[in-house]
Amino acid sequence: MEYKASVNKLTQPLVKYLIDNADKLRIEVDVLENGCTIIDAGIKVPGGLEAGRIMAEICMGGLGTVSLNHSAYTENWPLSVNVYSSNPVLACLGSQYAGWSLSHEKYYALGSGPARAMATKLKDGQQEPVEALYKELGYTDACDSTVLVIENDAIPPLAIIEKVAAACNLDPAKLTIIIAPTSSLAGGIQVVARVLEVALHKAHALHFPLENIIDGSGSAPVCPPHPNFVKAMGRTNDAILFAGQVHLFVKGSDEAAEKLAKELPSSTSKDYGKPFAEIFKQCDYDFFKIDAMLFSPASVIVTAVESGKTFRAGKLDNALLDQSFGA
Amino acid sequence: MEYKASVNKLTQPLVKYLIDNADKLRIEVDVLENGCTIIDAGIKVPGGLEAGRIMAEICMGGLGTVSLNHSAYTENWPLSVNVYSSNPVLACLGSQYAGWSLSHEKYYALGSGPARAMATKLKDGQQEPVEALYKELGYTDACDSTVLVIENDAIPPLAIIEKVAAACNLDPAKLTIIIAPTSSLAGGIQVVARVLEVALHKAHALHFPLENIIDGSGSAPVCPPHPNFVKAMGRTNDAILFAGQVHLFVKGSDEAAEKLAKELPSSTSKDYGKPFAEIFKQCDYDFFKIDAMLFSPASVIVTAVESGKTFRAGKLDNALLDQSFGA
Amino acid sequence: MEYKASVNKLTQPLVKYLIDNADKLRIEVDVLENGCTIIDAGIKVPGGLEAGRIMAEICMGGLGTVSLNHSAYTENWPLSVNVYSSNPVLACLGSQYAGWSLSHEKYYALGSGPARAMATKLKDGQQEPVEALYKELGYTDACDSTVLVIENDAIPPLAIIEKVAAACNLDPAKLTIIIAPTSSLAGGIQVVARVLEVALHKAHALHFPLENIIDGSGSAPVCPPHPNFVKAMGRTNDAILFAGQVHLFVKGSDEAAEKLAKELPSSTSKDYGKPFAEIFKQCDYDFFKIDAMLFSPASVIVTAVESGKTFRAGKLDNALLDQSFGA
Repeated sequence: MEYKASVNKLTQPLVKYLIDNADKLRIEVDVLENGCTIIDAGIKVPGGLEAGRIMAEICMGGLGTVSLNHSAYTENWPLSVNVYSSNPVLACLGSQYAGWSLSHEKYYALGSGPARAMATKLKDGQQEPVEALYKELGYTDACDSTVLVIENDAIPPLAIIEKVAAACNLDPAKLTIIIAPTSSLAGGIQVVARVLEVALHKAHALHFPLENIIDGSGSAPVCPPHPNFVKAMGRTNDAILFAGQVHLFVKGSDEAAEKLAKELPSSTSKDYGKPFAEIFKQCDYDFFKIDAMLFSPASVIVTAVESGKTFRAGKLDNALLDQSFGA
Repeated sequence: MEYKASVNKLTQPLVKYLIDNADKLRIEVDVLENGCTIIDAGIKVPGGLEAGRIMAEICMGGLGTVSLNHSAYTENWPLSVNVYSSNPVLACLGSQYAGWSLSHEKYYALGSGPARAMATKLKDGQQEPVEALYKELGYTDACDSTVLVIENDAIPPLAIIEKVAAACNLDPAKLTIIIAPTSSLAGGIQVVARVLEVALHKAHALHFPLENIIDGSGSAPVCPPHPNFVKAMGRTNDAILFAGQVHLFVKGSDEAAEKLAKELPSSTSKDYGKPFAEIFKQCDYDFFKIDAMLFSPASVIVTAVESGKTFRAGKLDNALLDQSFGA
Repeated sequence: MEYKASVNKLTQPLVKYLIDNADKLRIEVDVLENGCTIIDAGIKVPGGLEAGRIMAEICMGGLGTVSLNHSAYTENWPLSVNVYSSNPVLACLGSQYAGWSLSHEKYYALGSGPARAMATKLKDGQQEPVEALYKELGYTDACDSTVLVIENDAIPPLAIIEKVAAACNLDPAKLTIIIAPTSSLAGGIQVVARVLEVALHKAHALHFPLENIIDGSGSAPVCPPHPNFVKAMGRTNDAILFAGQVHLFVKGSDEAAEKLAKELPSSTSKDYGKPFAEIFKQCDYDFFKIDAMLFSPASVIVTAVESGKTFRAGKLDNALLDQSFGA
């Protein structure tokens, strides 16, 4: 009932804006032979802060507001991303979460954004969502065009593009793919803007009922890009893990809200305590060896709207932030 | 001369946006039999932060900018509302102030927003503004549609709707009423966004000449909703009383500006010092027993533009804020 | 290659917005006999914060985002301007910099904004840019209309208007001139919003290669207006000199980035240490006697994206800020 909005329909004006303002945003728009529109936001072109901000709003399915400002929150990293949503579960999990695993030969990427909500696959003779998460959300979208966001250094091969279009049941000419490397400014910002999404994803992993999450907001410092992929990715994560801040408004019991607040911060993870790039290395660069509970904001506030009580846990860690960002 | 803008005309695009994006904002739009459009922003539907932000801009007659971000200003309540206006007197007093008293049988509400500027009543054979304030402002508006914002748990009865339409000299089909309960997120935000308005209203009560107020801005933390009406209302007020911050730019003498700064903060009131819900209870839930001077921001900065001098008084009270918000 | 956007084309919607919303913004639009549109944003009319914010985005050629919020950064001056750009060199130097010297009899003004990029003069039988800076940038713009921003107490004489139109090779009817006095709110904000521009201008003076500046953001407190021109101008500068904060993202070597960070802050100037109005007086009100290195933000962060290292220098000076702003 709360998921009536079409994340694909809502993002159409944002995608059009990127295309119409490519020169201004220093991004590059290319139409492939199969008709698919490719937007490069940082591979061959500089892209930048504003391109990343708009990409983040596209990732959120047009259901989020992302803004940049200078804040006095951290000691050394004033430039910050602020994000909030009119429908956090649909925006963050139904669209922004990078949940669509795409690979072909040596190319591997996680797809994010509205296309995820249209993607289906054939299983036991029936079309079902590519990601099981959508069955839990009870949400699928239908639209005459779609957009997928990819964090990568390269444009995906045709095989992936055609697979995405086919899964969305659309001609490739109706598909736009936006790509930004982790080490680009736009790429970094669209990840840091996931500060609210990682909170919702972990809340889901902690079995907090998603339908009880009414609204939410978050902030995190923009990380300085790094040319090395692992370090760049480490910094985008650490922006959230060491300095991300989230306020969630939830229904349900105080016990559930308090438990959520206590368990949500990154510091509750056994892997917390060093920059992400180091953890990743110690885990032999295997994501699945990292504690999934690590991916969450540093500081969490949860208000239980049915009692009016607020619970909080976690805190900003300036020292670890500086260690990661290379103050 | 400075009140040439039509607050009703300026809000038409904002009202259209609410209606066109109802699913996205999780609000509900209903058209009554008499043609009046009712927008529920938190009674039967979740509504949320963004719905409240847009409601606040509607309350300000399209003359204000309201934004949400995370700030380091208070210790525990980062999510904040920022508000400024291109015409603070008209935006805040000529539209946002909840000055239209509406009652029918057991239903009682204070109407806010652009419709107030169109409402007239017959007195001594002449049409005059429903609120005397408009005579002082020397402002009345005329438009082919109007909108009223109501803070309440219920949709007003038909008798009130028809009274509002008639006072505005419009068919009910040309009237939109937006309703959000005090205990909803949207309802809370639209009240907290009154941080600048309460400063202007108190300046008026202190007999500061309104025509000398050139511009102004303000901020206050978003309060956590509370299911109990009195506590919810208390928190919306306390957000402003304990942590509201306002900067006014005024013409006139330094003496007048300094006096305004000194007298404006909430702490100058004899009732200051405990959460609003407690004061309200001690006053037997009778607003008129509360010192009217209480309703104002915690911290006030007044710049006298004719001398360039700035005066300041009041301060943030984290302890009282936490006591009210239930840190 | 990175300067493909037309700053004149991109500002057309912003200029139209000012004109269409003149009543709301309390500015005055006048069309002269020669067809030139004059927008008064603070001479005979109040103008205000929002008019100044939009003027700043016009100055930046539609390539910048300027917003106002309350920040906890300075002790006494919460109201702040935030600015960032999708193309800082083009936005700030190719448009925002007040580089076009215009004089006629006793009238003297520096022109800022998109018209600069269209202005040419005849030299040795050839048309070349009025400002040599454009040759370095390798950028000229062409458009069917243009806009110039002037910081002054008076509308320029016809001779200047016709000179500007002629230099842009346009009929005066295709020219809009926006004027705000230094002592007005709008005038003050459009100067404080130059926090990023002064950093880029000084980077250029320090011979840092402009093509290596990928992106940037900045913030500074809004200064209280002062009726005296010298003090008003002093405060607009001091907002940046004592409390401006900039984060630049640059290509090139760590040595170059570190050198830039170290040399960029205002405190590196031999003239740093007292309010600008006092310095100006000591220099007999002659700009050219003031150290050009003074005009820059108080606090600078430079990230070298090719190594991922960040360098910082300078700091907020609350005491000098209060001395200038008259706390």
